Amino acid sequence: MPTYTAPVRDTLFVLKEVLGYDRYSNLPGFADASPDVLEAILAESAKLTENVIQPTNRAGDLEGCVRHDDGRVTTPKTFRQAFDEYRQGGWMGLAAPQEYGGQGLPYAVHNAVSEYMISGNMALLMYAGLTQGAIAAIITHGTDEQKQTWLPKMVEGGWTGTMNLTEPHCGTDLGLLRTRAVPADDGTYRISGQKIFISAGEHDMADNIVHLVLARIDGAPAGTKGISLFIVPKFWLDASGNPGTRNAVSCGSIEEKMGIHGNATCVMNYDEATGTLLGEANGGLKAMFTMMNEARLGVGLQGLAVGEAAYQGAVAYAKDRLQGRSLSGPKAPDKKADPIIVHPDVRRILMTIKSFNEAGRALALWTALKSDIAHRSPDEKDRQEADDLLGLMTPIVKGVLTDKGFDHAVMAQQVFGGHGYIEEHGMSQFVRDARIAMIYEGANGIQALDLVGRKLPMHGGRAVQAFFKEVGDFCDENRAIETMAPFTKALKKGLNDLQAATMWLVQNAMAKPENAGAASTDYMHLFGLVALGYMWGQMVKVAHENLADGADPFYATKLVTGRYFMERVMPETAAHLARISTGADTMMALPAEAF
Amino acid sequence: MPTYTAPVRDTLFVLKEVLGYDRYSNLPGFADASPDVLEAILAESAKLTENVIQPTNRAGDLEGCVRHDDGRVTTPKTFRQAFDEYRQGGWMGLAAPQEYGGQGLPYAVHNAVSEYMISGNMALLMYAGLTQGAIAAIITHGTDEQKQTWLPKMVEGGWTGTMNLTEPHCGTDLGLLRTRAVPADDGTYRISGQKIFISAGEHDMADNIVHLVLARIDGAPAGTKGISLFIVPKFWLDASGNPGTRNAVSCGSIEEKMGIHGNATCVMNYDEATGTLLGEANGGLKAMFTMMNEARLGVGLQGLAVGEAAYQGAVAYAKDRLQGRSLSGPKAPDKKADPIIVHPDVRRILMTIKSFNEAGRALALWTALKSDIAHRSPDEKDRQEADDLLGLMTPIVKGVLTDKGFDHAVMAQQVFGGHGYIEEHGMSQFVRDARIAMIYEGANGIQALDLVGRKLPMHGGRAVQAFFKEVGDFCDENRAIETMAPFTKALKKGLNDLQAATMWLVQNAMAKPENAGAASTDYMHLFGLVALGYMWGQMVKVAHENLADGADPFYATKLVTGRYFMERVMPETAAHLARISTGADTMMALPAEAF
Repeated sequence: MPTYTAPVRDTLFVLKEVLGYDRYSNLPGFADASPDVLEAILAESAKLTENVIQPTNRAGDLEGCVRHDDGRVTTPKTFRQAFDEYRQGGWMGLAAPQEYGGQGLPYAVHNAVSEYMISGNMALLMYAGLTQGAIAAIITHGTDEQKQTWLPKMVEGGWTGTMNLTEPHCGTDLGLLRTRAVPADDGTYRISGQKIFISAGEHDMADNIVHLVLARIDGAPAGTKGISLFIVPKFWLDASGNPGTRNAVSCGSIEEKMGIHGNATCVMNYDEATGTLLGEANGGLKAMFTMMNEARLGVGLQGLAVGEAAYQGAVAYAKDRLQGRSLSGPKAPDKKADPIIVHPDVRRILMTIKSFNEAGRALALWTALKSDIAHRSPDEKDRQEADDLLGLMTPIVKGVLTDKGFDHAVMAQQVFGGHGYIEEHGMSQFVRDARIAMIYEGANGIQALDLVGRKLPMHGGRAVQAFFKEVGDFCDENRAIETMAPFTKALKKGLNDLQAATMWLVQNAMAKPENAGAASTDYMHLFGLVALGYMWGQMVKVAHENLADGADPFYATKLVTGRYFMERVMPETAAHLARISTGADTMMALPAEAF
Repeated sequence: MPTYTAPVRDTLFVLKEVLGYDRYSNLPGFADASPDVLEAILAESAKLTENVIQPTNRAGDLEGCVRHDDGRVTTPKTFRQAFDEYRQGGWMGLAAPQEYGGQGLPYAVHNAVSEYMISGNMALLMYAGLTQGAIAAIITHGTDEQKQTWLPKMVEGGWTGTMNLTEPHCGTDLGLLRTRAVPADDGTYRISGQKIFISAGEHDMADNIVHLVLARIDGAPAGTKGISLFIVPKFWLDASGNPGTRNAVSCGSIEEKMGIHGNATCVMNYDEATGTLLGEANGGLKAMFTMMNEARLGVGLQGLAVGEAAYQGAVAYAKDRLQGRSLSGPKAPDKKADPIIVHPDVRRILMTIKSFNEAGRALALWTALKSDIAHRSPDEKDRQEADDLLGLMTPIVKGVLTDKGFDHAVMAQQVFGGHGYIEEHGMSQFVRDARIAMIYEGANGIQALDLVGRKLPMHGGRAVQAFFKEVGDFCDENRAIETMAPFTKALKKGLNDLQAATMWLVQNAMAKPENAGAASTDYMHLFGLVALGYMWGQMVKVAHENLADGADPFYATKLVTGRYFMERVMPETAAHLARISTGADTMMALPAEAF
């Protein structure tokens, strides 16, 4: 069974040394999380993860959730206590506004601690993540009354939230949505329909569940323009604001899934359930989208977090398992064999994951900081620039960190040989859990389309041009530094490939949109490599500066890891560009019956 | 639930039109499988797979195997009948010698039908595959008495076989093996020890189980030089050759695994069990290796077969699921949305798998034919050349087809969106089942080391030089043909990368073996791409020749699919070469504690 140690030092390195966390002390909430406080928060969340959350992970997978005949759903036995400690620690509302009982701390700090906790138990943290998403939606779109009614208990963690989008015949294409909302005389609506794949849809860890439900008001336009968002609580509240009357929403069944067994994935039946409109009528899709960035960043974090947990498992096993001898002569001559970490192909796996995760963590935090600036900066230009980059990077963080997080869980499992395939070692669970993050909150193919179809052309390409300039300037400014040259050279090569791919899209996708679709996934990964390479550039620069200070091996390790990334991971940009440049013709040539 | 249709037409195309199956009618067994008979065999095996084997797949996953308190293991309820039909159809001994009741048909034919059946139910076919491996070992190393005693019933399928290598502390590194063999006065041995991960170790589908067990005879040299192979049956035979006395071998438990739940993966306890030596004392490892090629090709086939089954599931879903509209305008304007096969990113997935699988099938059959020639040709030079290529290609078929087969199962699952993550659709099972093929029969990292460390330098690089010449000649001979030029150009580029990587290894790995280890996995995949590209070259050539004949869309489809492979898959060779050329320094630089 793998154990887990939160990479606190690495988070602090990224936030404080690389991203200049101190510079943002003028933003609301940042002063409350001064560098010292930040350190304390990370340490506290690490402790909670390592001692309380992570130990529930394996049992949660084994036990799963159970729907009883009366419609109740029970979660794994150990979950309740861990979730209680999470709530009691104030983690649910860490970044939520103080007026609703939150701590108002930076989203970047929330992001940092969430990574740890998801590494500890992804399925458990989903109950929190869905709630935080619902909180964000109500803050942005709720009336004062809705906010006062629902937010305090949700921010406290006593009540949880859900997102109800998918129906059996409609996932990506929400225009096909059928759930009906019939206006009642009192201003509420009667919601009827079936929703599927509803994470945390029903469970026994909260006194109330606040469902946010997409539905179509009778007479609304067809397609996505006629969709509205509703608050449909499990219990309506009595006069004192406590859960009272049961609403006509129930869990019809829970899905048998490949992984995240600890999270109840429900079929939810709405049978004239009473709901109130959240935001404007027919504005449901827009309302969902305003909260999409953070939700997608949260899923990207799941990819990173599970990949990190799997990596730590593989490292421990590689140091412990004795098998074969080093190709350069015995390293543990007193033992019958060397630990397998001496073998290059095992190293390849560990270095590949390590070099990705450290850059992935930096990218997640860099993007989270953009979110903070976009939402909190007093300067409009700063807000706009940050919002551009936040929007641009969101599909990349979601798509790339989850695709790679899964790949890395598979690679880490491989280190265990046959033992990785046996459930008791826990590596299979990482693979099975990580798999869903590539699918939900917009399948990764949809992320890629969002990137090429929406984010790239937005404001005449303003976001992407800003990013190219930032990375290009970084290369130009640092290439004269001898120690930096190998890094800036590799990064510049990647940037050139990305710019060439972007130019190809500009020239070829307008006239033929299928060229954009055909390029999208490769483009997303190409962009991801450059973004991660840029993170490495910045990390390596700081490491070089600190290396002179003394013998702290942390910085020397950073340099080797960054070099590995540039040598072994960045070269993939060329293959992506080659694929993108071939266009859609061959891909689309066959009639459906030829498959 | 996915259905499955055996790709009979494609197999016939490869065997007859591309690989010139007819040319080998002079080899033993081939005359018995004339082109007409071949066609009948494929049709019959397709029928068995589609009607009998495939329908047991999902139930087998759900039900799994159960060990009872008395040590008995029961397999999923539907398995017995399907296995009976497999036996009764003579499939177990299809390629086994006629003198033991087999049909003596080409291994290539066995390989072709095995692909179908594994697509139908991988876990079930493992009972057969292990038996066929044990048959091969006994044929090669057994005494006449051992052959007469064990083979007829195994070839018939009444008794099954196993391979017992792994122990808790020893998998890849068999030198650490501890199972003891103590000589008895009657020439037999008393075998004691624990073996783990023993596929089909105990079950209820055969009257006897013939375990082949690696053990160390008391006083034998340490390490791999002191390992011997033994036949240890579950039941010793009575005077009339029927199962009689129970041997002291038993199943201690069965493993909880990620997948292949229908196969009983057993911990086997040997407690002074009686065994007979198979082959020479201390020659156990060599004896295992002589049967390794076919066993590894069989596992490679699992990767291909499960990837193909997953592909077929994704194709059916992509044609059926309505979601969104084509980027080039509605394709099903009468429906609320288009089938998702219109979307380029879905096409990308389907074309990537299709273009790989068709070349993978060709490579598996090409290699199987080499095995036939190596074992059956009257001409020594032919035998040697075929054996060289068989040895060279075996780790590639095993490593590349299983790595990619798994990747493709994951990609196919992605086509289903959230529905792919739900067990009832069967896509998760493909992913979970395919995962093991990357691990067992030598983890893929070991395959890569076998390629660079053993197969490459063997006989002064004779095999690899022969392969390079064959592919290079093909490019030279066909590049003047206008329709072939784009294909030969892409193939030649891949070959150049492969030759450059080979040269790099020659120059850098002698002095520093870790450079070979650091390059190995990339080299294996680079080699695989060129081998698959070569298959496409040959298939495309035949397709061009037949295209003139008329309007059979089969050949036109081949050309598009081959073009896709060259455009979108082959470009990865450059990234592999780039990685290989960076060597081991960065990879090996960190001390273990830096991870």
